Amino acid sequence: MNFASDNTAPIAPEILAALGAANEGSAPAYGGDELTARLTSQLEAVFERPCHFALVATGSAANGLALSLASPPYGQVLCHEASHITLEEGGAPEFYTGGAKLAGIPGTQGKLTVDGLQAAIDAHPPLPPHVMPRTVLSLTQATELGTVYTPEELSTLTAWARSQALKVHMDGARFANAVVSTGASAAELSWKAGIDLLSFGATKNGALAAELLLVFDDALAEGLAPRQKRAGHLWSKQRFLAAQLLTYLEDDLWLRLAAHANTQARRLSEGLADLPGVTLEAPTEANEVFVHLPAPLQEALRGAGATFYPWHAPGLAPSETRVRLVTHHATAPEDVEAFLAIAQKSV
Amino acid sequence: MNFASDNTAPIAPEILAALGAANEGSAPAYGGDELTARLTSQLEAVFERPCHFALVATGSAANGLALSLASPPYGQVLCHEASHITLEEGGAPEFYTGGAKLAGIPGTQGKLTVDGLQAAIDAHPPLPPHVMPRTVLSLTQATELGTVYTPEELSTLTAWARSQALKVHMDGARFANAVVSTGASAAELSWKAGIDLLSFGATKNGALAAELLLVFDDALAEGLAPRQKRAGHLWSKQRFLAAQLLTYLEDDLWLRLAAHANTQARRLSEGLADLPGVTLEAPTEANEVFVHLPAPLQEALRGAGATFYPWHAPGLAPSETRVRLVTHHATAPEDVEAFLAIAQKSV
Amino acid sequence: MNFASDNTAPIAPEILAALGAANEGSAPAYGGDELTARLTSQLEAVFERPCHFALVATGSAANGLALSLASPPYGQVLCHEASHITLEEGGAPEFYTGGAKLAGIPGTQGKLTVDGLQAAIDAHPPLPPHVMPRTVLSLTQATELGTVYTPEELSTLTAWARSQALKVHMDGARFANAVVSTGASAAELSWKAGIDLLSFGATKNGALAAELLLVFDDALAEGLAPRQKRAGHLWSKQRFLAAQLLTYLEDDLWLRLAAHANTQARRLSEGLADLPGVTLEAPTEANEVFVHLPAPLQEALRGAGATFYPWHAPGLAPSETRVRLVTHHATAPEDVEAFLAIAQKSV
Amino acid sequence: MNFASDNTAPIAPEILAALGAANEGSAPAYGGDELTARLTSQLEAVFERPCHFALVATGSAANGLALSLASPPYGQVLCHEASHITLEEGGAPEFYTGGAKLAGIPGTQGKLTVDGLQAAIDAHPPLPPHVMPRTVLSLTQATELGTVYTPEELSTLTAWARSQALKVHMDGARFANAVVSTGASAAELSWKAGIDLLSFGATKNGALAAELLLVFDDALAEGLAPRQKRAGHLWSKQRFLAAQLLTYLEDDLWLRLAAHANTQARRLSEGLADLPGVTLEAPTEANEVFVHLPAPLQEALRGAGATFYPWHAPGLAPSETRVRLVTHHATAPEDVEAFLAIAQKSV
Repeated sequence: MNFASDNTAPIAPEILAALGAANEGSAPAYGGDELTARLTSQLEAVFERPCHFALVATGSAANGLALSLASPPYGQVLCHEASHITLEEGGAPEFYTGGAKLAGIPGTQGKLTVDGLQAAIDAHPPLPPHVMPRTVLSLTQATELGTVYTPEELSTLTAWARSQALKVHMDGARFANAVVSTGASAAELSWKAGIDLLSFGATKNGALAAELLLVFDDALAEGLAPRQKRAGHLWSKQRFLAAQLLTYLEDDLWLRLAAHANTQARRLSEGLADLPGVTLEAPTEANEVFVHLPAPLQEALRGAGATFYPWHAPGLAPSETRVRLVTHHATAPEDVEAFLAIAQKSV
Repeated sequence: MNFASDNTAPIAPEILAALGAANEGSAPAYGGDELTARLTSQLEAVFERPCHFALVATGSAANGLALSLASPPYGQVLCHEASHITLEEGGAPEFYTGGAKLAGIPGTQGKLTVDGLQAAIDAHPPLPPHVMPRTVLSLTQATELGTVYTPEELSTLTAWARSQALKVHMDGARFANAVVSTGASAAELSWKAGIDLLSFGATKNGALAAELLLVFDDALAEGLAPRQKRAGHLWSKQRFLAAQLLTYLEDDLWLRLAAHANTQARRLSEGLADLPGVTLEAPTEANEVFVHLPAPLQEALRGAGATFYPWHAPGLAPSETRVRLVTHHATAPEDVEAFLAIAQKSV
Repeated sequence: MNFASDNTAPIAPEILAALGAANEGSAPAYGGDELTARLTSQLEAVFERPCHFALVATGSAANGLALSLASPPYGQVLCHEASHITLEEGGAPEFYTGGAKLAGIPGTQGKLTVDGLQAAIDAHPPLPPHVMPRTVLSLTQATELGTVYTPEELSTLTAWARSQALKVHMDGARFANAVVSTGASAAELSWKAGIDLLSFGATKNGALAAELLLVFDDALAEGLAPRQKRAGHLWSKQRFLAAQLLTYLEDDLWLRLAAHANTQARRLSEGLADLPGVTLEAPTEANEVFVHLPAPLQEALRGAGATFYPWHAPGLAPSETRVRLVTHHATAPEDVEAFLAIAQKSV
Repeated sequence: MNFASDNTAPIAPEILAALGAANEGSAPAYGGDELTARLTSQLEAVFERPCHFALVATGSAANGLALSLASPPYGQVLCHEASHITLEEGGAPEFYTGGAKLAGIPGTQGKLTVDGLQAAIDAHPPLPPHVMPRTVLSLTQATELGTVYTPEELSTLTAWARSQALKVHMDGARFANAVVSTGASAAELSWKAGIDLLSFGATKNGALAAELLLVFDDALAEGLAPRQKRAGHLWSKQRFLAAQLLTYLEDDLWLRLAAHANTQARRLSEGLADLPGVTLEAPTEANEVFVHLPAPLQEALRGAGATFYPWHAPGLAPSETRVRLVTHHATAPEDVEAFLAIAQKSV
């Protein structure tokens, strides 16, 4: 009953097998290999257009690179005050951009709104060159509270961003979960909704370590390859990154893996929501459940072997009862049922 | 009736004269000159101990250098949410530190408190290496709302900082005004109160362009000279920075200039506070008055030729009536009286 | 007959199998897993002492991190003028250090000497703060010309470095090949010879993507974890890096793989050296052969399907006949023999 | 008899007077003042076109800012191996650019040539993304050996640079001396000869501390103001920088000051060149004399009170007899004659 994180999950068997299959003889280094070429086509099919991309091993690298393309070092990146990029990436965006500022903006249930963004600017209006110019809007999809932006919500936000001359980045560490949740296509949730750069995660959803940075705006892509290289994120044996992602995208594997995770989270959420004393912090729209569990209930669950973390974040009232439950592609439905059974017995 | 900023002020005549006096023949470049040597002694007298220092032309340079000595690039600098270093220095601290994050903390009347600081940490607890470690506390003296920390308040804050392994920086762009306001000595308001690095301003208080970065902690001073040089802030003809500061500190000129500015601000503040519809945003303890003036009153004053700015900052409720009035070493008392006379007539 | 690069090689079967074996159920993320714990012990055994380490996917990341620990941003890193860190890492050292300068120093057959280093300093003597202080000596082992430093040579260089207050980094992308070549132990070729930080490569020698940064100097390790994180080089599923390296080091697999590569290179070198018109650029002491092949011979070999690159580098006279032949853990002896047979026929 | 450096010189009386004249009452801060506006027009007249500019206090700041506009952080700046930017600015270019590499290129008598530049590229050909792309050519005018590029030489170099997609920066710390020396106009020695960015010095030629960064390429100017601010190089009381430069440029003061310095250097050079055992290192075309003086002669001169430095630089053969003699706007002709008289007596 491990609901600690999707980072604790194993590799999906299909992806592990793909690594073995890729291990045949020599292959050109640094992306000159055949699998990378095939991935290029596959991405074009999934996103319904050609795009620039880089393959890296971590989400922090993808996000850092993306922001370094979208903002000069003297810019401000607008993001949710609870966003991973500003709270938990150890300063990667600041490092990659060379000193940009991440401006955390409040927003309920993990989501930014045009009103919230505009209010933050009004409270500290542009004053060049004293006030760092706002240069980027970064959105997390699915959000840090397990909710999901609809294509319409995204379009509203990106239209506002464009009116402010901001580029738009999406941290899609759980993009697959959002695609499954909304039923929209990958294109509809990204460039068709005004996203310029997408960090498209696979590691949390079944890969060994593989993330894609997709750049939809040609002008932003110029520095992509040299910045990836200088960050030490260009793999010599890139075929083994390409193999993971190719398999991930082929035959909708990525969507099936995410659908499983989402289903388990929804089941957890529904099973808990009816219990007395239990309240959801936010609707469960992807693979994370943010929920208040009374202390005795937490104790009972942990006593029975369940693993999960308490949750604190800027913008949320201090609370000892809030926890996060994360499901993933390999979460066993029996674990979910066992967890709920204990919960029902223990309230 | 120019109350726009102490940056609009002229050079104090004594300091201008000192530049002429320093212009005799050749002098060794880059700080090897005699005036720099004399300044070393003078600083030791004023601060009651030897200290490391650098002479630079702007406060942003002094602050940026200070923070680059006190924090690694992966650290967080705790500062007031309305502090100049995070709002209006164009990202200088981020540039100088190589990517540190400035964490804005709320605090009433421009002042940080231990409770406020601790609450910010509790809302986002340390989690290495994901959460950037807090490395520095930066305090502004006088504050961005014209208030002043007492030595006792500083000691409380720096004791807490030390318990958290934080270095303490003071942005003393208006340090002279704070010294005059509290009646404490320069030492009592700095290293004796636990300050490790002090940006000691002179430009707003009568210099042409001259700021001192003082480093009281020997271990922090190691990178001072090379960082100053690589930032392009080592003057070849340093004698002309030293001359300004030497004259500034000799015969208490700095205190006399600041006392004049403080007196004018207090007079303004007292004269306005009694008027109907006028309320102070914060007590006037240095050379800045933050005050709410009804719109018709503002109009009347501006119509009569007065210059001043509206004031907005994170942490302050949006308001169209809040303005900032700044006095300085050369503010004419007649201007203050004229301003108050118009105000009295216009309410 | 692919002698283009050891980066084109596949994964060693033992290491691929280890990835599958590591894929059992959940595991704590970010290095809290059991395999990382076991690797800690294994490293202590191989290096005969405990050491700080970080697991990353590329050599550029390991080198960049190492130099960022060893040098402030205003320092100079002394390295061979043909070293990979200054020529072919896209500026990774400059990025990670925040702007240090890499000073390329000449040296025959890829090796630096005390005389060469001292001469470079004498030609541009220290002049603080104008001249950036020399802070690090970085050595490549095996060198960029396929030669190997003996423990005695290393000790001589590191003793000089210590006399200049320099930290010493070793770029050991081909460290295994050097260990096999010298017959010295891992400890004798690193910390016992005065090395402070070692980039210990595995990718070129059979791993999928796995490099170790080892830090032998406790004081230098302080920033290791936060710098790794902010660079996006902390894997969530670190068990899959640890699994590669654990298997690499267990049962001397790393030495067996390197021995195979070295043997093939030596065979190539010996087979070519006797041919008329063929001369070695440097002795073949690891897994790279730098050799002058007359143009018709090159043509014949390429015509028969052999792959290899011409070689140019600062410090080498311009030449159209110089090529590099690289062997690796999976180089087929039959390919070597076939290559030599064609060469013999074609001269 | 101080020939140590033009950095030891005093302020020209006209410029000192201008500071006093500028000190009348309040003036808008940060460049909103009237003197800055007048300087804008004056620059347009001198350079025969409008241009973007920033006022700063040091040449290192001007150079660092210029390079940060012209190169991404992953680029290489081609410059003479003895250039000030790579040898003696403490890493300012690396800091400002965020990690660009300065590639020192040999060239006789302080000058770069197309052949020398092309040879350096051929020795280490482009290989993206491994080899950092060459992005900028930086030329020093007058050069570090006291020679001067003619407009024709500049045009040849900048045409080549353009063919390589390089931007061209000129470090004009002694630009005035070059203008006087060549008889060309400011425009002919800068943008008309293909220069994109010019660091136009005044400090060495009579200012207190004032340098101009001129940007002739509109596209490069975008980041100028925010980068100047974040570097702490935007003066609040900018009128006092503008006043210096306005006076410097009015009535050809800058040319008269430089002409005086050049004349004294030529006299020194001619007077020494005929002495037995004395040889010039390079022709004296500006205000610096690089000359070999036998040790006894140096001793005699120093014994008589003369001040000057020995000179070493990469690209020059090690020599104990090479010295640098620098003249400036305030060098007394009697000092020159006295120096020569002693020299003649002492050989």
